[in-house]
Amino acid sequence: MTIFTKIINGDIPSYRIAENDKFYAFLDISPLAEGHTLVVPKVEVDKFFDVPDAYMTEYLLFAKKVAGALERSFACNRIGVSVVGLEVPHAHMHLIPINHVDDMNFARPKLKLTPEQFKVIQEKILSNF
Amino acid sequence: MTIFTKIINGDIPSYRIAENDKFYAFLDISPLAEGHTLVVPKVEVDKFFDVPDAYMTEYLLFAKKVAGALERSFACNRIGVSVVGLEVPHAHMHLIPINHVDDMNFARPKLKLTPEQFKVIQEKILSNF
Repeated sequence: MTIFTKIINGDIPSYRIAENDKFYAFLDISPLAEGHTLVVPKVEVDKFFDVPDAYMTEYLLFAKKVAGALERSFACNRIGVSVVGLEVPHAHMHLIPINHVDDMNFARPKLKLTPEQFKVIQEKILSNF
Repeated sequence: MTIFTKIINGDIPSYRIAENDKFYAFLDISPLAEGHTLVVPKVEVDKFFDVPDAYMTEYLLFAKKVAGALERSFACNRIGVSVVGLEVPHAHMHLIPINHVDDMNFARPKLKLTPEQFKVIQEKILSNF
């Protein structure tokens, strides 16, 4: 069972942003920017493009709702999307509020936020759906 | 009219990889890796998440076919996905064969390839659909 399935099941706590029958979105705890969110399919598949077609047709529509709330929550030019997937064998999409291309550089130092800061970010996003 | 619409219309030449009624895929001429491909909707929309829902439901299914051909063409762990969109006001998705997270760092120097090299890459990918 992947760490993301444990998060989806609630066995590992997360700052939940959105959920439906197929997807779960939550704050990345090593964020590149405030609001950096992961959108994960509830099916355990390693590679993004191996996710079943029934998920693929709905993936961007689900992510779009999350991206809209993120864009309304933070001062940013737009929401960037990144799928890398070399670390956790469970497909996931990063949604990141960006102003410059370097805002999506995963080699950059991640933000270190307290639980209180994460909660403020979570509530801000939830209020903007 | 954006540079991508000119490419889609054939007014600017490109190394075409795939096309259907809604999308056009072609080699990025400033690639981060051999096979770096752009997947562009034929509708002119600046921000990725403003692309109409009818495109969003088909976007990943179209990109999946391209990603499969890329993965079979190059020695890579998987195909990374990136949507940034700060430079050209026409939504587009980068598909990049990757082995390390830094392979998707847009701050890295781009490959400089000759037209002959691009043609070899194009034909290799086309043979792997």
